[in-house]
Amino acid sequence: MDAAIEWEPAYARRAEGMKASEIRELLKILEQPDIISFAGGIPDPALFPAQDAAAAYADALARAGNAAAALQYSVSEGYAPLREWIAGYMGSRGVPASADNVVITAGSQQALDFLGKLLLTERDTALVTAPTYHGALQAFAAYEPRYDTISPEQTNRTPASYREAARKAAPGARVKFAYVVPDFANPTGETLSLSGRTALLDLAAALDIAVIEDTAYHALRFEGEDLPALQAIDVARCGSLDKSRVVYLGTFSKTVAPGLRIGWICASRALIRRLVLLKQASDLNAPAINQMVVHRLVSDGRHGELVERARAQYRPKRDAMLAALTEHMPASVSWTRPEGGFFIWLTLPNGVSGASLLTRAIDEAKVAFVPGAAFFHDGSGENTIRLSYSLPDTTEIASGVRRLAALLR
Amino acid sequence: MDAAIEWEPAYARRAEGMKASEIRELLKILEQPDIISFAGGIPDPALFPAQDAAAAYADALARAGNAAAALQYSVSEGYAPLREWIAGYMGSRGVPASADNVVITAGSQQALDFLGKLLLTERDTALVTAPTYHGALQAFAAYEPRYDTISPEQTNRTPASYREAARKAAPGARVKFAYVVPDFANPTGETLSLSGRTALLDLAAALDIAVIEDTAYHALRFEGEDLPALQAIDVARCGSLDKSRVVYLGTFSKTVAPGLRIGWICASRALIRRLVLLKQASDLNAPAINQMVVHRLVSDGRHGELVERARAQYRPKRDAMLAALTEHMPASVSWTRPEGGFFIWLTLPNGVSGASLLTRAIDEAKVAFVPGAAFFHDGSGENTIRLSYSLPDTTEIASGVRRLAALLR
Repeated sequence: MDAAIEWEPAYARRAEGMKASEIRELLKILEQPDIISFAGGIPDPALFPAQDAAAAYADALARAGNAAAALQYSVSEGYAPLREWIAGYMGSRGVPASADNVVITAGSQQALDFLGKLLLTERDTALVTAPTYHGALQAFAAYEPRYDTISPEQTNRTPASYREAARKAAPGARVKFAYVVPDFANPTGETLSLSGRTALLDLAAALDIAVIEDTAYHALRFEGEDLPALQAIDVARCGSLDKSRVVYLGTFSKTVAPGLRIGWICASRALIRRLVLLKQASDLNAPAINQMVVHRLVSDGRHGELVERARAQYRPKRDAMLAALTEHMPASVSWTRPEGGFFIWLTLPNGVSGASLLTRAIDEAKVAFVPGAAFFHDGSGENTIRLSYSLPDTTEIASGVRRLAALLR
Repeated sequence: MDAAIEWEPAYARRAEGMKASEIRELLKILEQPDIISFAGGIPDPALFPAQDAAAAYADALARAGNAAAALQYSVSEGYAPLREWIAGYMGSRGVPASADNVVITAGSQQALDFLGKLLLTERDTALVTAPTYHGALQAFAAYEPRYDTISPEQTNRTPASYREAARKAAPGARVKFAYVVPDFANPTGETLSLSGRTALLDLAAALDIAVIEDTAYHALRFEGEDLPALQAIDVARCGSLDKSRVVYLGTFSKTVAPGLRIGWICASRALIRRLVLLKQASDLNAPAINQMVVHRLVSDGRHGELVERARAQYRPKRDAMLAALTEHMPASVSWTRPEGGFFIWLTLPNGVSGASLLTRAIDEAKVAFVPGAAFFHDGSGENTIRLSYSLPDTTEIASGVRRLAALLR
C-alpha cells in the first residue's frame, strides 16, 4: 500500500501568500434569505439583458458556419469585431486605439492576474491605495510582491522614497506599477480628482513604472462631470497609446452581465502582444460564443442603453443609502458620498472593529456588509466597513441601514 | 512631454521563458483554404452539438430566476450540478469522487496553469515525457521550472538520479510532479501501457511527488481495451482519492466543444480547496451559463452519445491516414499507430528537419503539419513531425499524405 501524499510541503513558495478572499467566503454564508446584504459588490440581476442574450446566443448558433466558429477554439487576442468595438469605445474615452491595442480577458480579474504575472518578480513593489480592491491584492499575491501605499490626492512621499524602499526588499527588486480604481473605487466609492490623476502620472513618470487603471465602475456615473481616463491624459502627454505607461482595464461585468466573464486590456501594442502570449498559456482563449454575444449586446448603440438603464437603477439605491445614513447614523460615524458605482465606505469611531460589528449585525440586525480591513495591504482599516447598495431594493436599503445604525448608537 | 515607457525592462524575470507557441502562430498562417492542414489538433466542427447547445442556452435564459444565476457571478469551484455529473463520470472511470473533489476550469489549459502556479517554485523540476504536450510546457514556463525526462515504458533512471539532478538546480529545489498524457497522447498518439502506468506511479511514490494525468483524448478510443486511469490505480493503492497523489485533468473540449472552455480537475479535497482559491484569484469563476449548457449537453446519457459520434467520425480519418502513410511513405519514415485521439507521430530519417520539411510542404505540396521539435523540452526531436487527422476529411487526408510523401522520396 502506497503512502498518502502530503500536499502542503508540495506547494510552491508563492502559496504561502495565497489566502481565501474573506469576502467570497462571507458571501457564501451571507446569502441567507432573511439577511439584508450590503456585502457583495454584485450587479442587480434585474438589469441583465436576458432576452437579448438569448436572442444573441440563438443567432450565434443559427448558421452552421458561425456556429462552428462560436464553438471552436479561437484566437487568444479575442474576437475581432468585439476588439474593434472596444477600440471605438476607447476612442470615446479619449484614447485613440486600434483593435491591436486590445486583448480580451475573463473579466478584469484575469487582467490583474496577467499583469501581476507579466510584471512582478518576487519582492518587486506594487503601489496601491489603502484601501484598494481586495481582488487585486489576491491576484497579485501569487507573484509575491511587497506593497507600498500611494495617496494621489495628497502626495507626501518623494519618488526616491518609493524607489529606496523597493530596493531594500531584495537585490534587484524595483517598483513595477501603481494600481488604481480611479472612478467610484471599490471599496470607497471615491473618484480620483483631475489633480490626483496628474499627480499619479507624474509619480509614475518619475519612477518610470506602469499605471494599471481599473475602470470597472466608470460607466456608472449618476452625477457630476466625467473625468478623463488616466490613459487619455497620458496619451496626450506622451503622444501615442503605444508609448503610454497606462494599462487600461475594462469590463462588461457591471454594464452587461458578470457571468459572461468578458473584460479587456487596452495598452501599447508591445504589451498587448505579451499579454496575448499569457492568455494563450493560461487558458488559450475566451469562449468565442460569449464574445459574440457581448458584441451583439453592446453594438449599434445598445451599450449606451444598458449604461443608462444601469444608472437609473443604481442611483435611487445610492440615494436611499445616503439618506438612511444621514437619518440614522450617529455623529461618530462618517462616510463617503459616491457619484456613481456600487459602494459607500464608512469610518467607525476609533476602536470599533468592523469585523466585530459584522458578527453583531448578522446576529442582532440581520444585516451583512464587508469589514474594511480586507481591503488594506497593511493590515490597517479595522474601524472601516464597506456597504454595497447594488443588490438590495431601496426599502431594504433604508431598513438595513436603520438596523445597522441602531447597533452603533 | 512625458518619456515613453520601455516595456521590456519592466517585465518579470519569468517573462524570459515565455514564448509564443510556434503552433498557434503557425495555425494563423496555415488556415489558408488551399492548404490541407494536418497542423492544428482541433476538433471537427461537424461534431459540435450546435442545435442542442442553442436549445440549452435558450433554456438557461428562459426562466427569470435561472437567467439571473446564468448571467451573475458564481462560485469559484463551479456549477454544482456539473460537478456532481463529473463526480459520477469519475466513478465510471474507477475513481470514487464527490463534487468536492472537483473544480471547474477554463479547459485543461487553465488546469495546467493552476498546477504550475500551485506547485512550482522557480528552478523546481517538472518531469515530462519527450515529446510532451507543448501547451503544458507553455503553461509551466511562467513558473520557471527546469525539466527532466521520464520514459515510463522503459525506465532506466533511479528515483535518486532525478532527486539529485533537481537538487543541483538551486538551493531547496525539488522534483514537484510528473506530467503525462496517458491515452492517445498529444503529440505521439501513443497510449501508456498498464505496466508503464504502474512504473510511473512507483516512481512518483518513490519521489513522493504529484502525478498530473491529462486525459484530454481518453474518450476517443477507436479500438483496443480501455486502460485504467492512473488516478484509479493510485486510489486502489492508497485507499482513497483524498490520499491520492494523482491529479486528473478532464475536458469537454474534445467531446462537446472546445469553444465553451469547460474542463475540470479531480483530486484530493485538500488540493481542490487550494485550486478553488487560485480560480478565485485568477478569474473568479467559469461562466455559469456555459457550465449550465455543458451540463445539459452531457447529462441523461448524452455524453455517451457525443462520444460515440466522435469515435465514428475520427476513426475513418485515422484509418485513411494510416493507409495513406503505408501506401506512400518511404521505408525510411516510421510512425505511430494510435488506438484513438487525433495524432500520428512521424520519425523522419536522421538529419531530415521537420521544420525545413514544413517550409517545402507548404510551398510545394500545399500541406501543413507541426514540426516535432516544439514538443520537446530539451530541443531535440528535429527529425519528427506531428500529423493531425481530426479536421480534414478522408479524401483530403489521402491526398495530403500522398503529396507530403512525395517530398520525402
